Amino acid sequence: MSRHVYDCHIRFSDVDIYGHVNNVKYFEYFQEARIAFLVSLGDPMLDPGADPTMRQVVARIDVDYKRPILFRPEPYGVETWVTRIGTSSYDLACRIVDADGTVYSKAEVRLVAFDVSTQRSRPLRDTERSRLETALES
Amino acid sequence: MSRHVYDCHIRFSDVDIYGHVNNVKYFEYFQEARIAFLVSLGDPMLDPGADPTMRQVVARIDVDYKRPILFRPEPYGVETWVTRIGTSSYDLACRIVDADGTVYSKAEVRLVAFDVSTQRSRPLRDTERSRLETALES
Amino acid sequence: MSRHVYDCHIRFSDVDIYGHVNNVKYFEYFQEARIAFLVSLGDPMLDPGADPTMRQVVARIDVDYKRPILFRPEPYGVETWVTRIGTSSYDLACRIVDADGTVYSKAEVRLVAFDVSTQRSRPLRDTERSRLETALES
Amino acid sequence: MSRHVYDCHIRFSDVDIYGHVNNVKYFEYFQEARIAFLVSLGDPMLDPGADPTMRQVVARIDVDYKRPILFRPEPYGVETWVTRIGTSSYDLACRIVDADGTVYSKAEVRLVAFDVSTQRSRPLRDTERSRLETALES
Repeated sequence: MSRHVYDCHIRFSDVDIYGHVNNVKYFEYFQEARIAFLVSLGDPMLDPGADPTMRQVVARIDVDYKRPILFRPEPYGVETWVTRIGTSSYDLACRIVDADGTVYSKAEVRLVAFDVSTQRSRPLRDTERSRLETALES
Repeated sequence: MSRHVYDCHIRFSDVDIYGHVNNVKYFEYFQEARIAFLVSLGDPMLDPGADPTMRQVVARIDVDYKRPILFRPEPYGVETWVTRIGTSSYDLACRIVDADGTVYSKAEVRLVAFDVSTQRSRPLRDTERSRLETALES
Repeated sequence: MSRHVYDCHIRFSDVDIYGHVNNVKYFEYFQEARIAFLVSLGDPMLDPGADPTMRQVVARIDVDYKRPILFRPEPYGVETWVTRIGTSSYDLACRIVDADGTVYSKAEVRLVAFDVSTQRSRPLRDTERSRLETALES
Repeated sequence: MSRHVYDCHIRFSDVDIYGHVNNVKYFEYFQEARIAFLVSLGDPMLDPGADPTMRQVVARIDVDYKRPILFRPEPYGVETWVTRIGTSSYDLACRIVDADGTVYSKAEVRLVAFDVSTQRSRPLRDTERSRLETALES
């Protein structure tokens, strides 16, 4: 099994007054990578008819900044994988990296299974759990 | 001493396909509040001639999501205060709150004193330390 | 009748590497002002149950840049008014201004009445037309 | 000579509450394409040491919306070319297109040669003019 890598293309408008990608944009990059990762596992989140009782919401994100990200034509890689699967929540780890091994930022994200109709958390279902297990690194 | 509160005006373009403010925007709100907070303490960060050996950079942000933020004309309050002052770094706590006490999100931010000319961290100077002490809640 | 003015609060993250608000953000400001303007006229666009056969879509925007917008705590004013009401479309004019009369940018926006169910333009209804007439300057 | 095409990767965070890319983002796409286009012609705008008396600023943008842009993994193409070279300004045309010929949006952009030190427009220099001529379609 190989880690999911999302090719993140930097926009000039991501750059702030200091000439680096603004801190806030790292979260956007992690979000884009997470969506591509979950869809790659088979999550129907982008289907217009996706079951709203099956939503997952972000409960927490921790981000470490290691190095500034600069504007360039070549994309940065954003890796995403699963580190924990609980009863009603799970954790992802993410890294913005270059092919040479340079790490720009790391993140940990906790997602909670959510039922939009009751507005409450709910147990992860077996289909969700088995999808996540294929990308679990323990 | 009262806590610094930044009035955060929500933009319709902050709202995502689910009808809530997108997760990523919370970081933008915390960033705007932090800048207003530090400037209110006397930090010259926005002066064009600010000493680049005196920069501070974000090393880590942890964000907890409590409740969805909705588009509305009235601003949300973003509180920011100091929780720790170390040798070369310090910690801020932030909350997005409403006047009725509702908490939408909490964040902890670690900032590191940075010298742009050497590209390394550096000890906090006395002027920085004394500014931060005025907003320290322990 | 007085012109609708939206108080636009600049975010530090709107500023680009040149130290000015990025060109792209002007469109965001005009969009925020337009939504506030239309809602002030009674347009139900933000109601979750708004009739989707009554949508209006932007067909064209022309923006003139006059002066750089700088980050500051005080909001800029964004005026919006109606300049033309046609059969199935209408035009708005917008200006980003300061109280002293300084004009930062002007825009003209053409909106088209749209029926989401048929994916086609449609005639403006009388309720839409009469709302717009209250803000028409010819 | 073939037209410059910028591969524009849509982000999920570009999508608004209606499930389409928000109008405002089109300007961001045109901006990214324009920067890539000008750099491809040899414009040193991204060099940290670029001569500030040689800046060019956007004076006007006109955008036509033709079709909604949807989130998808495949990039959209953004073409950019030169339509007019004047004494102190020039015009670009841009189109967001698909390989099958579908046009999503068209834009015309007027840029003005600007001298940051005097804060005034200035004549285009020969090096600028000859760069632009290589991409002129009349």
